[in-house]
Amino acid sequence: MEAVLKEVLRKVKPRSGDAAKLSKVVGELIESVEGACRKLGVHARAALVGSAARGTWLRTEKDIDIFMLFPETVSKDELERQGLAVAREVAERKGKERFAEHPYLTMNYNGFQVDLVPAYEVSDPGMIKSAVDRTPHHQEYVKKRLTAELEEQVLLVKQFMQGIGVYGSEYRTRGFSGYLCELLVLHHGSFKGLVQAAAGWPPGAVIDIEKFYPSELEPRAVFTGEPLVVVDPVDRNRNVASAVSLKSLSEFILACQDFVRAPRLGFFFPRPVKPIGPGDLRARLKKRGTRFFCVAFRPPDAVEDVLFPQLRRTERAILGRMAQSGFQVFRSDVWSEGGLAVILIELAVSKLPKAQARLGPPVALGAEKFIGDHAGSKSKLAGPLVDEGGRVFFELERKETDARRSLSRFLEEGTGFGKDVSGAIGKGHQLLEGAEVAKLFGNRGLREFISDYLSRSLPWYR
Amino acid sequence: MEAVLKEVLRKVKPRSGDAAKLSKVVGELIESVEGACRKLGVHARAALVGSAARGTWLRTEKDIDIFMLFPETVSKDELERQGLAVAREVAERKGKERFAEHPYLTMNYNGFQVDLVPAYEVSDPGMIKSAVDRTPHHQEYVKKRLTAELEEQVLLVKQFMQGIGVYGSEYRTRGFSGYLCELLVLHHGSFKGLVQAAAGWPPGAVIDIEKFYPSELEPRAVFTGEPLVVVDPVDRNRNVASAVSLKSLSEFILACQDFVRAPRLGFFFPRPVKPIGPGDLRARLKKRGTRFFCVAFRPPDAVEDVLFPQLRRTERAILGRMAQSGFQVFRSDVWSEGGLAVILIELAVSKLPKAQARLGPPVALGAEKFIGDHAGSKSKLAGPLVDEGGRVFFELERKETDARRSLSRFLEEGTGFGKDVSGAIGKGHQLLEGAEVAKLFGNRGLREFISDYLSRSLPWYR
Repeated sequence: MEAVLKEVLRKVKPRSGDAAKLSKVVGELIESVEGACRKLGVHARAALVGSAARGTWLRTEKDIDIFMLFPETVSKDELERQGLAVAREVAERKGKERFAEHPYLTMNYNGFQVDLVPAYEVSDPGMIKSAVDRTPHHQEYVKKRLTAELEEQVLLVKQFMQGIGVYGSEYRTRGFSGYLCELLVLHHGSFKGLVQAAAGWPPGAVIDIEKFYPSELEPRAVFTGEPLVVVDPVDRNRNVASAVSLKSLSEFILACQDFVRAPRLGFFFPRPVKPIGPGDLRARLKKRGTRFFCVAFRPPDAVEDVLFPQLRRTERAILGRMAQSGFQVFRSDVWSEGGLAVILIELAVSKLPKAQARLGPPVALGAEKFIGDHAGSKSKLAGPLVDEGGRVFFELERKETDARRSLSRFLEEGTGFGKDVSGAIGKGHQLLEGAEVAKLFGNRGLREFISDYLSRSLPWYR
Repeated sequence: MEAVLKEVLRKVKPRSGDAAKLSKVVGELIESVEGACRKLGVHARAALVGSAARGTWLRTEKDIDIFMLFPETVSKDELERQGLAVAREVAERKGKERFAEHPYLTMNYNGFQVDLVPAYEVSDPGMIKSAVDRTPHHQEYVKKRLTAELEEQVLLVKQFMQGIGVYGSEYRTRGFSGYLCELLVLHHGSFKGLVQAAAGWPPGAVIDIEKFYPSELEPRAVFTGEPLVVVDPVDRNRNVASAVSLKSLSEFILACQDFVRAPRLGFFFPRPVKPIGPGDLRARLKKRGTRFFCVAFRPPDAVEDVLFPQLRRTERAILGRMAQSGFQVFRSDVWSEGGLAVILIELAVSKLPKAQARLGPPVALGAEKFIGDHAGSKSKLAGPLVDEGGRVFFELERKETDARRSLSRFLEEGTGFGKDVSGAIGKGHQLLEGAEVAKLFGNRGLREFISDYLSRSLPWYR
């Protein structure tokens, strides 16, 4: 294992040149923010936060988070107005506004993705006014405790998470944030200590570094239903791992189990997915024998953390209606990059029989109305009948026996879709079936996504 | 309602000629049993029991139950041996042996179906040695209380039950026995009183004529899970309605609701099912669009109450294995008459895609073996992957995508089938698909069964 980890560090640890470049850029940015504050008469101080400030950034990470810290006496409206004014001044209109909880600004600067975020400087992290106000306290907590050696261990953990596909707390991944990786290293002392422990994590594992709670039972009751609980050392009422889904957690645990058994570089740097061409696409679809639909459209202009929940919500709405109509969904997924969004729906069966059962209420609760509604119906094939559970049912002729037509209708109706996604689909969409999806293979990202989807496996099994 | 009931009575009440004929036959049988007892030196007395003895037989009912009552001092082996010897002597080898709890003998005699049943004469019905020993006590209880007027009400109830298809406590029907009908009339005072009350029966209704229990709660706890509880007035620990399934009970309740709303003869004498020909068969199958299989074989030589549970068990086993293989069953049924037994399996879908998901254990419980079993498999299409519930899964190529081949294999294997039915199917069976079933339409009963199945409804809605 030692040799593998050494090799990983060689690849991911920033070199002195990288660090110097980062330092220079950060210095320029801080100076620029402070200059803008003076110019606009804004009383705020600039501070670098995040992995760049802690020495836990991977060589490939090009994120810089600069906070504009305001005194608590400033109103929320003023903070947003002033923060944005300063940020715009800094970006010289090159940045693009984005919205999280606060409005903040994202821009590209000398090859880095820079976030300029206004926040309150709050002395007690239990009394913050918005989620981002906690960040400087995280910063302080971690910085105090991380030695140079532990910093390296954090790099290993972050690269491992990235390699196995669970790095990032955003909705798209629902995985492990950088801060969470740092805390896990602080708690377990090393990458090795963490993966050995995590290989045996039970469902609902609890980590309480500052021992705020006398036993594991209490945090489990407070953060009920969350698959992993890591109590925030700066706020006992917050679970740092609240974004981690059971899926991501399970993938991490499985990766740890596999890695402990047979360490290799493939966990950190998995083989990339091989993009397939139209011929391969046809062959793979044929081998699966399922019916494969791709709904493609131009996504609404929203950040990923707004877009992806809406895409998932839309996917779930379609799945629910398809299931209700009798079409069993085999697998599905969503994807978006650049100007394209896609919902994949793969069905086990594409053609249903005419006959469908329509279940009514139990006789004891009164079935008169249900029977009256269907007994004289033209579409009746059989019934009324009573099933083994005492419920009345009919067999009726189904209106739509073809999956494509049902899917088309659900897309037109948009019931239960995410709001902006519903609007975007309403403006126009393509419903592609089977190998037709190759029409969109000009989009490299989509081609990779489809290639991955069709023979997907956990990255370290590729 | 009165006019309807009067008309029903005119049709079902035995005429004086019928009663005289029954009397004569019963007299001959009793004499014959007693003569046989004397000849063989058996100490038992003959007694007529059942509806024929109580004046509650329908004109169409041609059943005579004669009990041979033995003193309790006779051993069970002796009772069986002597009882059978007497019965055989009576039947002069014309009868056929049948088995219920005791061996008893059934024979045809002058147009009647006669059961000769050996039983113990037990003074306390709570201390009986076998289920049939209770019958003479039921006889006594009912006979004491039924007036001529109430006898007519019982005839109405029995004909109503027969018309709506829930008369008989045997496994094939799982409905209401004659004795149960009599108790319901005793409790509610009349046919009208019963149907009005039953229209409002809640799930788990309790009737305790002798008020053995202080409240309804106690019998509900004793007979937990039984849809209808009618405490036996001669044995507080027995539910006379224990054979009544939730389905039969619900059908009865629904019929009562419908009848109270609009009384008509159709409840008592429903329109018969119209037997269809091969052309109609094809048209109806096409309209349903399902895939329809008929497994036909020569049934094992067993009474209905042994055969039908085995047929149902076999049906369930096939359904379970089909579902496991991904074939969703739409409806199914079993049937047998004379020398033919049939299991119908109607599928929503007949062809499955190659791809199938194989779900493994949750990661936290250890998925190493599961992954090892499939990761290198030739049939692997995708995986290992982790689902939202934290369980590992693969997508594999299905071996059998066609329902007919799967069904054939399950029939050959016979796993979980009823024992005798499994043997019978093993000896030889036909697997007919769709309109092929018309090959068996020479069997009138089967033709009626299939005709009914394809557009089945509750009899009073025909």
